[in-house]
Amino acid sequence: MVENGNFSKAYPMKGGDGFHSYSNNSSYQREVIDAVKELINEAIVEKLDINIHSLPNKTFKITDMGCSVGPNTFIAIQNIIEAVEKKYQTQFEYQVFFNDHVSNDFNTLFSSIPPNNNYYPMGLPGSFHGRLFPNASLHIMNSSYALQWLSQVPKEVLDKSSPAWNKGKICYTSAGDETLKAYTEQFGKDMDCFLDSRAKEVVPGGLLLLSFPGRLSETPHSQVYSNIAYDLLGSSLMEMAHKGIISEEKVDDFNIPVYFTSPQEVEEAVKRNGCFNIERVVCIPLKKSQSSNSTKAKAVSSHIRAGMESLLKEHFGDEFNLDQLFENFLQKLHENILPLQHGEASTVFLILKRKEVGR
Amino acid sequence: MVENGNFSKAYPMKGGDGFHSYSNNSSYQREVIDAVKELINEAIVEKLDINIHSLPNKTFKITDMGCSVGPNTFIAIQNIIEAVEKKYQTQFEYQVFFNDHVSNDFNTLFSSIPPNNNYYPMGLPGSFHGRLFPNASLHIMNSSYALQWLSQVPKEVLDKSSPAWNKGKICYTSAGDETLKAYTEQFGKDMDCFLDSRAKEVVPGGLLLLSFPGRLSETPHSQVYSNIAYDLLGSSLMEMAHKGIISEEKVDDFNIPVYFTSPQEVEEAVKRNGCFNIERVVCIPLKKSQSSNSTKAKAVSSHIRAGMESLLKEHFGDEFNLDQLFENFLQKLHENILPLQHGEASTVFLILKRKEVGR
Ligand SMILES: Nc1ncnc2c1ncn2[C@@H]1O[C@H](CSCC[C@H](N)C(=O)O)[C@@H](O)[C@H]1O
Ligand SMILES: Nc1ncnc2c1ncn2[C@@H]1O[C@H](CSCC[C@H](N)C(=O)O)[C@@H](O)[C@H]1O
Repeated sequence: MVENGNFSKAYPMKGGDGFHSYSNNSSYQREVIDAVKELINEAIVEKLDINIHSLPNKTFKITDMGCSVGPNTFIAIQNIIEAVEKKYQTQFEYQVFFNDHVSNDFNTLFSSIPPNNNYYPMGLPGSFHGRLFPNASLHIMNSSYALQWLSQVPKEVLDKSSPAWNKGKICYTSAGDETLKAYTEQFGKDMDCFLDSRAKEVVPGGLLLLSFPGRLSETPHSQVYSNIAYDLLGSSLMEMAHKGIISEEKVDDFNIPVYFTSPQEVEEAVKRNGCFNIERVVCIPLKKSQSSNSTKAKAVSSHIRAGMESLLKEHFGDEFNLDQLFENFLQKLHENILPLQHGEASTVFLILKRKEVGR
Repeated sequence: MVENGNFSKAYPMKGGDGFHSYSNNSSYQREVIDAVKELINEAIVEKLDINIHSLPNKTFKITDMGCSVGPNTFIAIQNIIEAVEKKYQTQFEYQVFFNDHVSNDFNTLFSSIPPNNNYYPMGLPGSFHGRLFPNASLHIMNSSYALQWLSQVPKEVLDKSSPAWNKGKICYTSAGDETLKAYTEQFGKDMDCFLDSRAKEVVPGGLLLLSFPGRLSETPHSQVYSNIAYDLLGSSLMEMAHKGIISEEKVDDFNIPVYFTSPQEVEEAVKRNGCFNIERVVCIPLKKSQSSNSTKAKAVSSHIRAGMESLLKEHFGDEFNLDQLFENFLQKLHENILPLQHGEASTVFLILKRKEVGR
């Protein structure tokens, strides 16, 4: 049986193309894609090392894992294809596999595939924490801004009898050390599953291109931009609990399965795995936006709503008033714009090359 | 640029899993899949002729073209995999490509992929009248009950100045010779496009397994079961036009892009193409149902509704009262149950083997 990572829970980005949809709230990720474009280009030209004469049917295979609904995934793929063409100066047939959870809105994704693409597009439903492809069948495997999603909230964090229990909070930011430790370990385990599968699927000399929303190794978790925002979202939820709109227990049970890694932690996972050479590690600091405080607060709020809406609905039920929550949250963002502005964030970007088998 | 058959219009089956959905109205197709199971088994054991030692990464690749939303496609794929395993008695990795129009409900399809499958599933959006895959990259290509869909209504049939103009009718059944000729030619052209693409995509020695809802070569079009039903649907529409509910012109402009082939016509297309050997042609007559007239009429009505709903909506607009149409249609089916019972239908099933290149 193919391990298709069924153990991994799915919280898809909001599909469709409405106001709160991921398509309309992914411009920050888009900046990241632009920032890594040149790095990817270089890596492909200098590091990719496959024997193109042995490619079955001259078919070059690329995947984007955690693709969501576009348009970013289409841009990422186009950048990769351009670099491959530049390097080999030859005509390949490209097969592109768009991967995300089964519950991702593939209908929206498929209907927005650029019409003049020069590849054969496929959708591949399933979790990247398990196997997705046959052995040694991909040449370049990309994942942008998806690996911060854990396969699950660490069990201890939900366990009342554990010191890691995260009462009254929704993320590990200002939680105790035990909670943070549980998150850190979960991220490590998830990376191990991810890298084990990818090591089997990518050809020797093929590349993994990974970008994470993360932090510098010296930045404490509590100073990470998104963590500050999540903490405020948590206090909005607690406020609703105190008003009796939702139960406090429900808030205790709610935790965001997201972790912001440092480059060092990913490097350690790569070393544990042993099948890849680390060709490049780059941290790209968040460009601080120059827009007004009010624009900023609104942007953070819609960005987080696009990512969290399905998670919140699943937990608090369909009747839960998301508009009310996000109004309160927006207010909190306004009030806390200063600490938020001091928040930091970095994109952690790695280029890994699959070692020759047996080395 | 990849020719992705954009010229082909899409009228997907009704998605989801509601009362009128394709999932709940495809039991007739299911019977056909069961009927051809043994034939497919034999063909794979006796005719499939690929060098399994040269399979890249021991990966065996199968596609089902025009898969709709399941469950039939999952059964068809499972039958094929079982036969391949029986033949080679060896462990392959299977990659399965589910193809349908971009507008197919892939979300429903993906969410119902059997959890204990032993293959890597992919969704492949695009028209099978154009290229879908890189050269020589598939081993078995299946299509069940999809190739009756033309890429378009033949142009002449919509042209008031043409002798093929199909005034007051929605299919070619009781239309003039010119209309029938236009449909026959369109089917021939579409088969040419289909076979040209497949000849490039399937490996030498690989198989095409094709089942069409069709007719025996000696059965006149007007005696084909579905054609009789379509003609009744047409008269229901005309009745609504006479009552002023829709315009007569709209009905004139509406034509069902479906054609029921004979084995002979498909064989001719295969010969024109020249890249395949015909290994087997079988006609499987429709089993006449033993249920009561009233059950029969209802079954025909919901079956046709599942297939035609999106086509009708597109043409007559979202406000069009489908319930009213199908009530009237059901009435007509009751009144005409005798001619309907004399109607004939056959599944035309072909097994084609890709010739060695250059032979
Ligand atoms: N285990 C998993 N397997 C596959 N996709 C996953 C996943 N965990 C999270 N994701 C997906 O990762 C996506 C993150 S959003 C990022 C989208 C895109 N790569 C961009 O750069 O804009 C979401 O669509 C989410 O469903
Ligand atoms: N040109 C084309 N390309 C791809 N799919 C097509 C097509 N024309 C029709 N179809 C699809 O063919 C399907 C026919 S319904 C048959 C479904 C399934 N094979 C079964 O046996 O039950 C529909 O889903 C329709 O969207």
